[in-house]
Amino acid sequence: MTLHELQEQVRRFAQERDWEQFHDPKNLSMALAGEAGELLEIFQWLTPAQSAAIMADPARADAVRHELADVLAYLLRLADVLEVDLATALRDKMDLNARRYPVDRSRGRSDKYDTYEN
Amino acid sequence: MTLHELQEQVRRFAQERDWEQFHDPKNLSMALAGEAGELLEIFQWLTPAQSAAIMADPARADAVRHELADVLAYLLRLADVLEVDLATALRDKMDLNARRYPVDRSRGRSDKYDTYEN
Amino acid sequence: MTLHELQEQVRRFAQERDWEQFHDPKNLSMALAGEAGELLEIFQWLTPAQSAAIMADPARADAVRHELADVLAYLLRLADVLEVDLATALRDKMDLNARRYPVDRSRGRSDKYDTYEN
Amino acid sequence: MTLHELQEQVRRFAQERDWEQFHDPKNLSMALAGEAGELLEIFQWLTPAQSAAIMADPARADAVRHELADVLAYLLRLADVLEVDLATALRDKMDLNARRYPVDRSRGRSDKYDTYEN
Repeated sequence: MTLHELQEQVRRFAQERDWEQFHDPKNLSMALAGEAGELLEIFQWLTPAQSAAIMADPARADAVRHELADVLAYLLRLADVLEVDLATALRDKMDLNARRYPVDRSRGRSDKYDTYEN
Repeated sequence: MTLHELQEQVRRFAQERDWEQFHDPKNLSMALAGEAGELLEIFQWLTPAQSAAIMADPARADAVRHELADVLAYLLRLADVLEVDLATALRDKMDLNARRYPVDRSRGRSDKYDTYEN
Repeated sequence: MTLHELQEQVRRFAQERDWEQFHDPKNLSMALAGEAGELLEIFQWLTPAQSAAIMADPARADAVRHELADVLAYLLRLADVLEVDLATALRDKMDLNARRYPVDRSRGRSDKYDTYEN
Repeated sequence: MTLHELQEQVRRFAQERDWEQFHDPKNLSMALAGEAGELLEIFQWLTPAQSAAIMADPARADAVRHELADVLAYLLRLADVLEVDLATALRDKMDLNARRYPVDRSRGRSDKYDTYEN
């Protein structure tokens, strides 16, 4: 399945329900962040080790799959209404990141990730 | 491009930098939500109409593409470390949503989306 | 009520349940963002005008009050475990913002808020 | 300092810059979640132990204080425009939580926190 095929499915789902009127980029950015927040809630009290083993718990595994799907659905819708090609955007961003995080200076360091903006 | 091919690219990027040690599901859920938050910041003061026209502004359009790519990258990584097939998860969730939001009772209504949990 | 008095109440609630073990700053930052995500979900499909009138709807008004309280509770806990005085932090940040956003150059402009980091 | 006094300061800051026009509840919920996302980014790659020691690092400590202040500022603004009394909302929510999480059945358990909504 390509991203475009998935996008087409999600668009059709919205169209059938006349939900496109709600799907402006501002609203969709909120829905995407809301679903990302639900993912956080699954992991928030788990230790890193517990988080790594989460799929062994069937109820939590279902919750994780549902939230990942929700994030993906809104990401696809948002890119769709903005007419952004996600695969191209990802490739371009990875090219940029490759320059920002050269392999030899980034190896095993997370601190380049951090941002301290206010 | 399939999701698996994109996932493979993002995984390789992390492997080359020895970043897999940081990529447990808990941390990745935070990174995903952090990037979703950066998307929000782009749209937060725009009217819905301004948000719909955002790609006409080159600087903002670049920012949008970068943030969408970042959300996608962390979503792919998170699904990868959890061994969740995103396309399957999306199809299953859309089947569930189709039962929850029947076309005839959902048409043009956003209020079924809303959740009022505490 | 001062922030410290509220903080004391929230701390006692956690202590009585032996929840302090879960309340490290990393986990609390996730809980705070998760609650902020629930607030988003209340507003995501509303127009700006509908959002401004939300307290006229009793069910939604309750949901809003609950989510605001949850955000506040986790913010107080997080500041508590980090030993950050919130009132001082706010005053310092407003001093900084006053220099960043001089009245005469910021009047009526939202675009200084925007950040386009990747 | 009471919450109302802090709220008054933040309101005045917005008024002086004619920013009240941007501060509808929808926009403010986005700004609040955006700042919560910036907090996440500070903690996302840290171990729980590193997160607990973060204030020993002066640069990160400043970043933490700034983000906590930003979250507080938007929370105060949001409550202000919604005319919600935050201290009352917190007390009411804690009463509700006390019933939901009775001390004897909640002691040392984080799993009552978890929510598995889709």
